Amino acid sequence: MSAPRASGSGEDDLIARYFRPLANNPGAFGLIDDAAVLEGRGDDIVVTTDAIVAGVHFLPDDPPEAVARKALRVNLSDLAAKGAVPAGFVLTLALPRADEAWLGPFARALGEDIAAYRCPLLGGDTVSTPGPVMVSITAFGRVPTGTMVRRSGAQPGDRIAVSGSIGDAALGLRLLKGAAGDGLSPAARGFLVARYREPQPRLPLAAALRNAASAAMDVSDGLAGDLGKLCAASGVTATVAADRIPLSEAARAALTAGVGSLEALIAGGDDYEVVCTVPPERWAGFVRQAAEAGVAVADLGIVAAGRAPPRFLEGRGQEMALPRRSFSHF
Amino acid sequence: MSAPRASGSGEDDLIARYFRPLANNPGAFGLIDDAAVLEGRGDDIVVTTDAIVAGVHFLPDDPPEAVARKALRVNLSDLAAKGAVPAGFVLTLALPRADEAWLGPFARALGEDIAAYRCPLLGGDTVSTPGPVMVSITAFGRVPTGTMVRRSGAQPGDRIAVSGSIGDAALGLRLLKGAAGDGLSPAARGFLVARYREPQPRLPLAAALRNAASAAMDVSDGLAGDLGKLCAASGVTATVAADRIPLSEAARAALTAGVGSLEALIAGGDDYEVVCTVPPERWAGFVRQAAEAGVAVADLGIVAAGRAPPRFLEGRGQEMALPRRSFSHF
Repeated sequence: MSAPRASGSGEDDLIARYFRPLANNPGAFGLIDDAAVLEGRGDDIVVTTDAIVAGVHFLPDDPPEAVARKALRVNLSDLAAKGAVPAGFVLTLALPRADEAWLGPFARALGEDIAAYRCPLLGGDTVSTPGPVMVSITAFGRVPTGTMVRRSGAQPGDRIAVSGSIGDAALGLRLLKGAAGDGLSPAARGFLVARYREPQPRLPLAAALRNAASAAMDVSDGLAGDLGKLCAASGVTATVAADRIPLSEAARAALTAGVGSLEALIAGGDDYEVVCTVPPERWAGFVRQAAEAGVAVADLGIVAAGRAPPRFLEGRGQEMALPRRSFSHF
Repeated sequence: MSAPRASGSGEDDLIARYFRPLANNPGAFGLIDDAAVLEGRGDDIVVTTDAIVAGVHFLPDDPPEAVARKALRVNLSDLAAKGAVPAGFVLTLALPRADEAWLGPFARALGEDIAAYRCPLLGGDTVSTPGPVMVSITAFGRVPTGTMVRRSGAQPGDRIAVSGSIGDAALGLRLLKGAAGDGLSPAARGFLVARYREPQPRLPLAAALRNAASAAMDVSDGLAGDLGKLCAASGVTATVAADRIPLSEAARAALTAGVGSLEALIAGGDDYEVVCTVPPERWAGFVRQAAEAGVAVADLGIVAAGRAPPRFLEGRGQEMALPRRSFSHF
């Protein structure tokens, strides 16, 4: 990013107006340089990148504030799952036009999240596109050397935990797309839609994960599929008690109102919770540290030897049929 | 990026097939994790990000090999100008569909550049889009702590240097867009088009810049505008002798053939050369080190006190009129 005085252009003016005020970290050089600096401190830098596209990851009429929050938070969710503390991010914005009515609230909401999550804007690129709005963020976190929590460390016998509640966002999206949900209260609707639009990255859980988890990832494409990815990376399988999957009150009400099925929630997306595995001897400490961090964690089941996709068992011990396990772009 | 076995999907298959073979750096975890690690070594990490969009930064019918090279090299060009040694990159690919005939050659060419520039693929994101192909790369480099070459260090009296030759890419683009160029040889045409499609990042110049330059940036949006940005960031102005601007033989032939004017070349884009300022006492050493690195550098003129846009003087000392100084997206 750059914002010179001597050769003003639309792009530079846009950056100067909307984004320079957000870039007050010394490593950002006020966005007047071609690059940013992440200071070497001897720790490891964790790097993650996630893009969101209008019409694919968010609805074209979603409020710009929600787009800004989602773009940053889906990346912060990855950092949280890896046990990292946010260190900054770079932003690539592809826009069909420079629309002040959109950019103003987008930048304001981004600024609020930068402050709330202490994740400074370090740089970026703003390009025009004949296509839809796309927001691509690469985010950086720090962990002590060698301590990033990986996907591949789960061992048979480890317990499986998931944070928060599952399925809210998938139900919120169904409501936004016109599902009736007869009898669902406005408060429940509002909660589910907010869960779709505005992920809550579980950064307070990062230290507990670093201390206790053998493997972790964020749940973004559906619990069944993402736990399957973690198991595959670790060379194990898992057994999950479906009735232990944490559901919010609003999600229970929406299931009752026929907005979706439990199977659909397990394969839904946009949860931005953390699924992790914890060796039994560290379980009590993990639960205590999570509680101290203010993040609810549920005990879902157990890691087992084998290579099959994780099994989700109903109350009577019968395996649930999951016609679809996760979201895929292609 | 992820590529599980247990819950295969189109996106994961695509990553496993085309990109996992390119990600052999240990920090990439074979693309099966949600994040990559840049090892802490106590040095500074330089971060730069540049996106290219079909129909904006490259032509929709440009060969996929050229798109891959351009996407990575425009970022490497920034690292070179900052004096950094490449350390890796993450790739975000937005695709209207998973097209094997496009992805195969794209990934092959990217793999060649990864090896040639020793810049490992660390991770990324692949998303579907209803819009044009977009390739967004965030690249990382290393410099000894505190030594990144900034835009803002130019001082009155510093000499101005530019690497390689200016204007080739702008002429190549004009030819691709149908400019006649009567009498221009096929070899000259081929050279200019290649200069548009396949930037040559000046990484061999990085150490010389770190040792000698007071300020530097890469020339991507036109020499006049980019030198203006450097001067603005440094709070200075500059005087350039237009007849010292290095032109290739092919560019001279194209000017003679009426493909463009010198003014247009100075304001053209896609040069991906480095413009820098060097204090007089370090000039001789800079020129020697550049020669040892095999990169031609031309002495363009001098930095002066003031805040006006840089002046480009013709042979008789008259100031050139530059109706347009650089490319802008908005």
